[in-house]
Amino acid sequence: MTVLALTGGVGGAKLALGLAQVLEEKEVVFLVNTGDDFEHLGLKISPDIDTLTYTLAGIENRTTGWSREGDTLNFLSALEELGGETWFRLGDKDLALHAMRTNLLREGESLTGATAHICSALGVKHQVLPMSDDPVRTVVTTTEGALPFQEYFVRRKCEPAVSRIDYEGAEAARLNPCLKLDEISSVIICPSNPYLSVDPLLSINELSEFLRNTSVPVVAVSPIVRGMALKGPTAKLMKELGFEADARNVARHYQPFIKGFVLDHQDREYISDVERLGLQATALQTIMRTLDDRIELAKQVLEYCSTAFAN
Amino acid sequence: MTVLALTGGVGGAKLALGLAQVLEEKEVVFLVNTGDDFEHLGLKISPDIDTLTYTLAGIENRTTGWSREGDTLNFLSALEELGGETWFRLGDKDLALHAMRTNLLREGESLTGATAHICSALGVKHQVLPMSDDPVRTVVTTTEGALPFQEYFVRRKCEPAVSRIDYEGAEAARLNPCLKLDEISSVIICPSNPYLSVDPLLSINELSEFLRNTSVPVVAVSPIVRGMALKGPTAKLMKELGFEADARNVARHYQPFIKGFVLDHQDREYISDVERLGLQATALQTIMRTLDDRIELAKQVLEYCSTAFAN
Repeated sequence: MTVLALTGGVGGAKLALGLAQVLEEKEVVFLVNTGDDFEHLGLKISPDIDTLTYTLAGIENRTTGWSREGDTLNFLSALEELGGETWFRLGDKDLALHAMRTNLLREGESLTGATAHICSALGVKHQVLPMSDDPVRTVVTTTEGALPFQEYFVRRKCEPAVSRIDYEGAEAARLNPCLKLDEISSVIICPSNPYLSVDPLLSINELSEFLRNTSVPVVAVSPIVRGMALKGPTAKLMKELGFEADARNVARHYQPFIKGFVLDHQDREYISDVERLGLQATALQTIMRTLDDRIELAKQVLEYCSTAFAN
Repeated sequence: MTVLALTGGVGGAKLALGLAQVLEEKEVVFLVNTGDDFEHLGLKISPDIDTLTYTLAGIENRTTGWSREGDTLNFLSALEELGGETWFRLGDKDLALHAMRTNLLREGESLTGATAHICSALGVKHQVLPMSDDPVRTVVTTTEGALPFQEYFVRRKCEPAVSRIDYEGAEAARLNPCLKLDEISSVIICPSNPYLSVDPLLSINELSEFLRNTSVPVVAVSPIVRGMALKGPTAKLMKELGFEADARNVARHYQPFIKGFVLDHQDREYISDVERLGLQATALQTIMRTLDDRIELAKQVLEYCSTAFAN
């Protein structure tokens, strides 16, 4: 039996790394958001897959959490000199990953196959699966109009207020065929942005139906602590969408899909509110500064899954 | 009136640089071989255009003559780690030029327009024109079968013996429409490989007809000195195609198109042989080690054009 971890960018990858440290290769599968994927300079870029791949390979940039540690920007500086688009930061080594993926896809490989090739080359043994091999594209409707995800997130630095988020292609997208839902023993929604990272996953019908109907534990870990996002624009976005940015509203957001909710010790006062949603809830140390923090949270979430929902 | 210089790779670019040093922007136009162009990792690569562009911009690699000086190979080393194709050496900054061109072409720009954009960004003021905006692809038939040019030239390092060379697409290719043939006052065939660099240019009907019929001086500079190529596989290739590798056979090769032939001082004994072909001939110092050598040869070839063919 296998733990299914749903994850997006940097925040989710922290817990994913913890899970990969405590679970064997066959014991966990990472299903990754591809709503952020886009094409840039002819390259097929999958930011969340790459963040997880680099993190699991131990070569992620320690400062940003994304891209590669010790990368150089010689390509980008030469591109700037030539008048090219440089708003999306592409390191020289990072570029090789995108070129490799683009080439594999051009040769007819699926995104799943290309991801497996790259993971294998970088020594990542755990299974990293794109949520779908079909394109799903997150589009953010803002005060400046509808923006493709990376235009909003990177180019406009999440500044325009958001009124609506769509996941284009989601209705037709098939869940990754390599994911064996009948082998899943529990599901962990990692502390990624609920709207930008996890909702694209939940927008795939086969996955959301599975989560709604399964009898296995489904547990989400809050990315919000004391009303603030540990990383990224989650809190700002919640306010723009009309929700108070606190862990309770994250639980409410996930309520149709989950059975248990993990919030931070600092938010333990909200446990009874979450329980009133018909969910189980527990408070853990969710802030992960060190590798030990990641491992410890992974252990405790797994422990929670295996004990709190026993019949 | 304008000097038209036909050029290919590193050897031709040396004389081209000399010409650019002694002629104003409007006094010379460089028409460049695109038979070597290919697509690699999704990038549109035009090696001869790039060599000339980098050379005229003064940023060419001083050791190889092609690619950029002081470039790094971080992309390539990461690509190797990922199991990608690394036989074509792409520096990180060089990659930016290919990405820029590929993007401009994807946006609907012509190769001429993309080249103009890149030249302008790099401060190249003289006009660099691809021989055609239509694709012409040099295919080399060897003992190992028919090979695309770069497979033969770079991947196989010119090792397989050549029996035949074709320029696919040449019949349908239109001469670069920005080239004004009625403004040309003389034509210089730079010391590039006659078969691999210049013949693709001559394979374009409108250009070869112009050269055959024009009354303006058309002069070729031999890339062969004392039976050896100054750069690249010209001598080896001539032998494989059944010709003794000497300057006389280069003159014979160009005979239908030229009126004058420049060979090296060391080959001055061949002047009478060349004259017997119905050509004029002169011996100059054609080996260009320094920038001064390039400028001096350019001056003397221009002087030869303007005096030897006066009616």
